[in-house]
Amino acid sequence: MPESEKKQITLHGIPAAPGICIGQAYLVGTNSMEVVRKYPVRKEDVTEESARMRQAVKKSETEISLLIKKMQQDNSQQSFILESHLAVLKDKMFFGSTIETIEQQQVNAEWALKITVDRLTHNFNKIEDEYLRDRSSDIFHVYERVMRNLVGNDDKGIDTIHKRVILVAPDLSPAEASQIRVEWVQGFVTDRGGRTSHTGIVARTLQLPAVLGLGNATTQIHTEDVIIVDGIAGLVIVNPDENTLVDYSEAEARYENHLFEISKFSHEPATSLDKRTTEVSANIELLEEVVSVKDKGADGIGLYRTEFLYMNRRALPTEEELFENYKEAVDLMEGKPVTIRTLDVAGEKVAKGLMAPHEDNPALGQRAIRFCMRHPGILRTQLRAILRAASHGKIRLLFPMISSVEEILAVNQIVREVRQDLESHHVEFGRDVETGMMIEVPSAAVCADLFTPHVDFFSIGTNDLIQYSLAVDRGNKNVAHLFQPLHPAVLRMVKRVSETARDAGIRMAMCGEMAADPLHIPLLMGMDFDEFSMNPQAVPVVKSVVRSLDHGQCQALLEEALKLPTADEIADLITGTYGDLVFQHPLYAQDAPQDQPE
Amino acid sequence: MPESEKKQITLHGIPAAPGICIGQAYLVGTNSMEVVRKYPVRKEDVTEESARMRQAVKKSETEISLLIKKMQQDNSQQSFILESHLAVLKDKMFFGSTIETIEQQQVNAEWALKITVDRLTHNFNKIEDEYLRDRSSDIFHVYERVMRNLVGNDDKGIDTIHKRVILVAPDLSPAEASQIRVEWVQGFVTDRGGRTSHTGIVARTLQLPAVLGLGNATTQIHTEDVIIVDGIAGLVIVNPDENTLVDYSEAEARYENHLFEISKFSHEPATSLDKRTTEVSANIELLEEVVSVKDKGADGIGLYRTEFLYMNRRALPTEEELFENYKEAVDLMEGKPVTIRTLDVAGEKVAKGLMAPHEDNPALGQRAIRFCMRHPGILRTQLRAILRAASHGKIRLLFPMISSVEEILAVNQIVREVRQDLESHHVEFGRDVETGMMIEVPSAAVCADLFTPHVDFFSIGTNDLIQYSLAVDRGNKNVAHLFQPLHPAVLRMVKRVSETARDAGIRMAMCGEMAADPLHIPLLMGMDFDEFSMNPQAVPVVKSVVRSLDHGQCQALLEEALKLPTADEIADLITGTYGDLVFQHPLYAQDAPQDQPE
Repeated sequence: MPESEKKQITLHGIPAAPGICIGQAYLVGTNSMEVVRKYPVRKEDVTEESARMRQAVKKSETEISLLIKKMQQDNSQQSFILESHLAVLKDKMFFGSTIETIEQQQVNAEWALKITVDRLTHNFNKIEDEYLRDRSSDIFHVYERVMRNLVGNDDKGIDTIHKRVILVAPDLSPAEASQIRVEWVQGFVTDRGGRTSHTGIVARTLQLPAVLGLGNATTQIHTEDVIIVDGIAGLVIVNPDENTLVDYSEAEARYENHLFEISKFSHEPATSLDKRTTEVSANIELLEEVVSVKDKGADGIGLYRTEFLYMNRRALPTEEELFENYKEAVDLMEGKPVTIRTLDVAGEKVAKGLMAPHEDNPALGQRAIRFCMRHPGILRTQLRAILRAASHGKIRLLFPMISSVEEILAVNQIVREVRQDLESHHVEFGRDVETGMMIEVPSAAVCADLFTPHVDFFSIGTNDLIQYSLAVDRGNKNVAHLFQPLHPAVLRMVKRVSETARDAGIRMAMCGEMAADPLHIPLLMGMDFDEFSMNPQAVPVVKSVVRSLDHGQCQALLEEALKLPTADEIADLITGTYGDLVFQHPLYAQDAPQDQPE
Repeated sequence: MPESEKKQITLHGIPAAPGICIGQAYLVGTNSMEVVRKYPVRKEDVTEESARMRQAVKKSETEISLLIKKMQQDNSQQSFILESHLAVLKDKMFFGSTIETIEQQQVNAEWALKITVDRLTHNFNKIEDEYLRDRSSDIFHVYERVMRNLVGNDDKGIDTIHKRVILVAPDLSPAEASQIRVEWVQGFVTDRGGRTSHTGIVARTLQLPAVLGLGNATTQIHTEDVIIVDGIAGLVIVNPDENTLVDYSEAEARYENHLFEISKFSHEPATSLDKRTTEVSANIELLEEVVSVKDKGADGIGLYRTEFLYMNRRALPTEEELFENYKEAVDLMEGKPVTIRTLDVAGEKVAKGLMAPHEDNPALGQRAIRFCMRHPGILRTQLRAILRAASHGKIRLLFPMISSVEEILAVNQIVREVRQDLESHHVEFGRDVETGMMIEVPSAAVCADLFTPHVDFFSIGTNDLIQYSLAVDRGNKNVAHLFQPLHPAVLRMVKRVSETARDAGIRMAMCGEMAADPLHIPLLMGMDFDEFSMNPQAVPVVKSVVRSLDHGQCQALLEEALKLPTADEIADLITGTYGDLVFQHPLYAQDAPQDQPE
């Protein structure tokens, strides 16, 4: 590839995890179709390009033949599928056309292949029959294989990275994100996703600077380009010039220093100016994160997501396996509370044994407590493990996706039965486990008062509450701009729930990412929360913000905010009043190098 | 098929459209895999079964070869796909295994084929590679073709029905439903769907009795079975005995008579006992339905869904085409108001020219006004057509899926621009068009007061409002039991919106199916609605219920209802107070033959 035009360019995205890093880009998971570029080829090099194409096709043929042979050895039934791939490879519309294009247009093989396949799939898309039309995927698979062989990308996964790099990807699936090793990955940059997308949560959990939702970063950044990721301002600078590099190296040092200053006090309670203490806890997904939770000075685990042990495996976890896991969590937390949320998945994601039907809108389907009520055996096993682990430390039990009073009554009944069963079999278990429910479905927020007789605490899950209240899928880039934590409806609902909890005398927590953002803390401090819980990395920062605020003043601010009609006006109000506090914070650092606005 | 055991069986489903019909079942759209039954075959008939299988395979081979030839004539690029089907047909795992099973187990060819393919696909599902695994669809396609030839089902569509039948189907897609001709179809029965699913709406619109969500009706009912569909009680009786037939014939007559009595007054206004008049209007999707709207005595069209002209076609409709359509609607309505809702679709469903990305949760994605704001040209064209048609009659303009004040401001700005443009080009248009918004996203309901300065009216879309508020996809059978129009949160939100509208002095309508159910009317009459709008068929019934109620008493009932924690208790309260009114109504007719509870 031509190494000319190494001009500095700045890309604007969504700042999803704070921090700054400078390093070499490493593209992963890019769909080859998207990143192919056109290069003119000199007449004398045309033969070479054609040869490259021939070689790539030959290699693909060998690979497919090997696959077929292997499949025939294992099981003779599937080989017919790949036979059609061989047919595509040999088709003159595929191979011949590409060679022709290279020769006639004098372009690189990748580009010639791409436009050939574009034309082929375009013709496919005109076919009336849906099934036939869908079979353009065969061509696309063959295309991907040939393109991979052409560009020499051996399709290595993230787990094979063995040098310090910055990941650049269309998006990171949960599976990919789980392969990230922090010793090699400095930060990441994606085309899709946003602050509250799974990728955003992972970035903050791993303390890696991240800029997401850039749209087309994977087409503008090449592997080995030097890039700067500014997770504070949401900028990615590609091929930075000397001055920019110096500026950002300094900013990186300032940021590190600021974090160090804040972390000195992170193990102290978060007590406001008027002496109200709010517990600041951490959300985790893996036992391994407990180290980070303690390191960051969290007052407890406010949300232990328990999906991990159920996913991507062939069998459901046993009660003993779950018990050991939960027990280790409470042991490690040494007396600090651990809030365990029961399984929150849609059926299709759970261990393969459970066949779940396809759902058009899984977020509005049989997930979380709905799934568990359909498979009460799974819930009972988990409850037994949780209650048993509770004899070793302080555990709270949290039920997700409760939308009606009938559900919480049914769940409470199951908890009672499990307790009785443990009792009657003389199994040791914790008898003082508080049970609570997530407030994340709008109906639960609107009717919070109907639930207070049946639970010991509420925990507001802002990610889902916002998603449902605004009818905006938080993982969907098309509507990401409509996902507004400061939407007046969200504030009204959250305030109302907190008042309801206070009036009923039950505990009130928030465990959504809304509580991790310093911008939101002044408003949330105007309500009556006993606990904020968030990704561990945000704990020191949130504690420092809480310490700078006065509850009464925050209440007044909240009253003002609730009169405003839009999220933007509410954000302006907060920054108008607490700009010094919120903006001097490095998450919104004014001393970070400023880029021209878009 | 053996005609033995013609025992009466009763199936319980969701009563989705009222009425009773008695007739012959006609199965459509059944996935052959689901309806195959096992029959033992006598030893001497085994050869015949094998011959049937051979014949079906041969026929399939001929069909595929013809298709390949045709494709090669048209366009040589796709034939490789079907080559793999020929390979499957000849594979000994497919053909040989089926013959073996017929001979060894002495079963019918359909069953032998089914278990052979079950085994094959089971093996496929164990493959790790997702792409290869998905290719089991090839086998399934071949299977379907052979099975079709085996059972002699020529895959006729609903449009080929030419005798009086009752449709029995897994579900009816909007496309299938649109083919239903009421002169041949007496009613329908489906495995999936519910009262508020698209199929339910279609059933009520066509005035066809329907029982939906039966789970496995298609496996328990055969084509030509005599069945009774009781759309009032939600029962389907298969192979009824003599007594049942007599009882139901009488019930059918009583129902018809009752409808006749009610319809005598349907053109009169719906004025309550205390002289409050509520407009009762109709929701339509097609211009053709206006006849039914007028026939049923609706006071106007409260919701004209305008998606139809955009879907399943190659190009977007022109302004002129839209104008003619809207003009005809207002012309036909002869001065009665027509509320036109702007395009409410997700991108993928719109005319093929618009490529829309896949969304994991389309209900929470870029649909309705979000889609239109992304493609403002489409909205402008529609607005021009609507405003122009408004010079010919009374039109109200309704915007769907508004979730924030910013959106309604942006929409109003576009309306202003379109008006100015029409003005400056001296195009005739209606100047007094009221603009309103759907209240169907929870955030809009919670913040209704923030919207009143910007609209002339609200129209509550209960289907979506319930869907989002309870996080329950209304088309998803797995969670259909959680879809509760009488959920306390729904009632609270609806009540609050109606109070807000009253206080602000703006018009208040409800255009969701909630208003079509007599059970809900006493509570809705306790609020301040100017208009209920629903499927045309329900208009006479709703008018008759409204006439029997007193606003003050309904307000008191509503206050009581709002104290209750569950939908069931609220339903009990209504029936406890207005049982005579609600239950004597044929929708809940007590004099219909009662079946034993499940």
